[in-house]
This record gives sequence, structure tokens and C-alpha cells, in this order.
Amino acid sequence: MSGPEIERLIQALAKLPGLGPRSARRAALVLLKKRDAMLRPLAAALTETDAAVHACGICGNLDSDNPCGICSDPRRDPTSLCVVEDVADLWALDRAAIFSGRYHVLGGVLSALDGVGPEDLAIAGLIERAKAPEVTEVILALSATVDGQTTAHYVTDRLADCGVTISRLAHGVPVGGELDYLDEGTLAAALKARRPV
Amino acid sequence: MSGPEIERLIQALAKLPGLGPRSARRAALVLLKKRDAMLRPLAAALTETDAAVHACGICGNLDSDNPCGICSDPRRDPTSLCVVEDVADLWALDRAAIFSGRYHVLGGVLSALDGVGPEDLAIAGLIERAKAPEVTEVILALSATVDGQTTAHYVTDRLADCGVTISRLAHGVPVGGELDYLDEGTLAAALKARRPV
Repeated sequence: MSGPEIERLIQALAKLPGLGPRSARRAALVLLKKRDAMLRPLAAALTETDAAVHACGICGNLDSDNPCGICSDPRRDPTSLCVVEDVADLWALDRAAIFSGRYHVLGGVLSALDGVGPEDLAIAGLIERAKAPEVTEVILALSATVDGQTTAHYVTDRLADCGVTISRLAHGVPVGGELDYLDEGTLAAALKARRPV
Repeated sequence: MSGPEIERLIQALAKLPGLGPRSARRAALVLLKKRDAMLRPLAAALTETDAAVHACGICGNLDSDNPCGICSDPRRDPTSLCVVEDVADLWALDRAAIFSGRYHVLGGVLSALDGVGPEDLAIAGLIERAKAPEVTEVILALSATVDGQTTAHYVTDRLADCGVTISRLAHGVPVGGELDYLDEGTLAAALKARRPV
């Protein structure tokens, strides 16, 4: 029907999260129609990103600078480290612009099922950083899943001798969330952590 | 937060139909995580497709061969031409594997609003092909929209002297469609074209 190149492009596009085989086909056609406006810029952006972007040697963030823009920013509070699972979580927190310290990307969570052990995560680097005299607080911003909480426990144990305050994100009702759509675990946590008004 | 290359990649991905800014960010991160399995194959597929794939000089299909695989396939019935708006429609019909003739891609439909006139569509080429002695039928597989039907009327007029039978796709209830979700126009067309059982 169409050439093998188009089929390969559709298959490569279909692997992207959010695109299925049907929308990948549509995307391929749009790319082929708008070669100058879409196809070539995308191909160039992919190649440039591949060449320029690497994981920060300190925190694990993805950036074209190493150390990354956050680790090398002198305005960032050096006393506070926020531990996240993934670069996506780091970006989400940084977009919210509510944390002025630095980050540490674990690169995943412990998972017996997926065979992810402590040595697969950037935990040694975290201990190293937490031992630095200027660091006084480590915030664990891990998923509220079983694996996330297992990881949080493990990291807390490992950080015990580093002389830092360890905290975790609060559980509760999401802002804008409706009560009757929430699961019981969240409701129980929100009730237990209720605050006087 | 992250380098300008990543931002450019996210912007290029967000232009794809089906991906918004949020899912483009997620896709960019996945691509950066799986460089060998996803980023580089996608970059290569884009560049290869750009270089290899062109519109068929006869029917307008996108293919790495010119004439395309359909136009050059001797097993295809040379008497029947199916007129479609877009390459996507051609692919959809060809996936269904119910038409054994050849196609003709108009490249759009007439639209006063969008300033698309007959000279913007591949109508001259269609007339030329319909005049060939072996062609006996032209099937208009255009959208059942106002613009699509205007285009069908115009093409029918232009084909009047070509000595071909002109037909259009049947209107009716989509197979698997539920009646109470259908619009009145479709129901009226289906009722009018009712068939004895």
C-alpha cells in the first residue's frame, strides 16, 4: 500500500506514549504533508536532543549542561534535597515553582516484581549528598504506591546516620478534587491528618 | 529547568495530532530514556521517510515508488477509479481490501471558506485518467459533508463527457452503529435507501 519507510515511521510513532497505531498513522500523514513545518524540525530536534542532553552527574536531571541548570544555580537553597522517582516528577515539581532547593532523581522505585533493587537506583549518590555539611533536610517526594512507600522506608533507613531531617509529601484530598471520587485510603489519610481551621 | 533542545523537542512533538503539551513532555522523556529503542529509530525513520517518500505522479498516493505500488500493480482492475479526498482515505479503503481498482487523490475538497478552488485539487489529472479508454467507472468516495458533496457534484459535472459511469458511496447506518446515536440526516438517508430483505 505504502512504502516500507512509512510503515517504519508509523511503527516508531506508535511506540510513543499517547499515540496508538491509528493516531500514529494520522501523525505520519500530517508529518509527510508538512515536511518543512513539522517533519524536518522534529527530526532535527530528536537528533540535537540526543546529542546534547545527558543526565546530570549530580542529581540525575536531564539537561544539556552538566551539572544541570538546577544544580549549578547559586540561587537554589543548598540545604534542602528533594528526592524524586523520575525526571518527569522533577519537572512537575519545578513547574509548580514551590521548591527552591535541589533535587535527586532515584531513577525508579524498589520493586521485587520488576527486579529493581537498591543498587539499581541512585541511592548511594543520595547518601553521599545528604552527608554534605550544608544539607539539613531531605524531602521524599515519591509516589504514594506500595513500591514508592517501600522505597521511602528504605531510603529513610539508609539516611538515618546522615544527620538530616527527613520528611515526605502530605497525603490528603487533591486541591480541586471531589470527595466522592476519592479512594478510601486517601480519605482516611486526609481525615487522620485533619487540621484545625 | 531543562535544556533548549528538550524544549524544542517537546514543542515539535506537541504539534503531532493526538499529542498535547503534557503528553509531548511525557513522550520526550520516554524518548530520552530509551534512546536506542525509540529516539534514534524515530529520528532515522523520519529522515528516511522524508528522503524516500513522494506523492505518486499518477494518483497522488504517498509511496517510496513512483508510480506507487497500487498504480504499478498489474493485478489491479484498470477499469475502475476511486476518487478520495486524502491519502488517509485511500489507506483506509485499501486496509479494508474491498476495492480492487485504482485510486485518485484529490488533495482536499472545494471550500469557499478556506479558499480552495478546482485548480487547487488534482481534478485535471482525474479527467485525463477518466478519458483513458480502459476506464469505465469512477467511484466518488468523498466525505458526506457539505464541502465533500459540493466537490462530488463539481467532479460529476466535469466527468460528464468522459464516458464513464459515476457512482458515490452509499449513505446509511454504519455497521455496528446504534440507531439512537445517529443524526437525523443519516437516518433519513438510510430509510430512503431501504432495501428488501
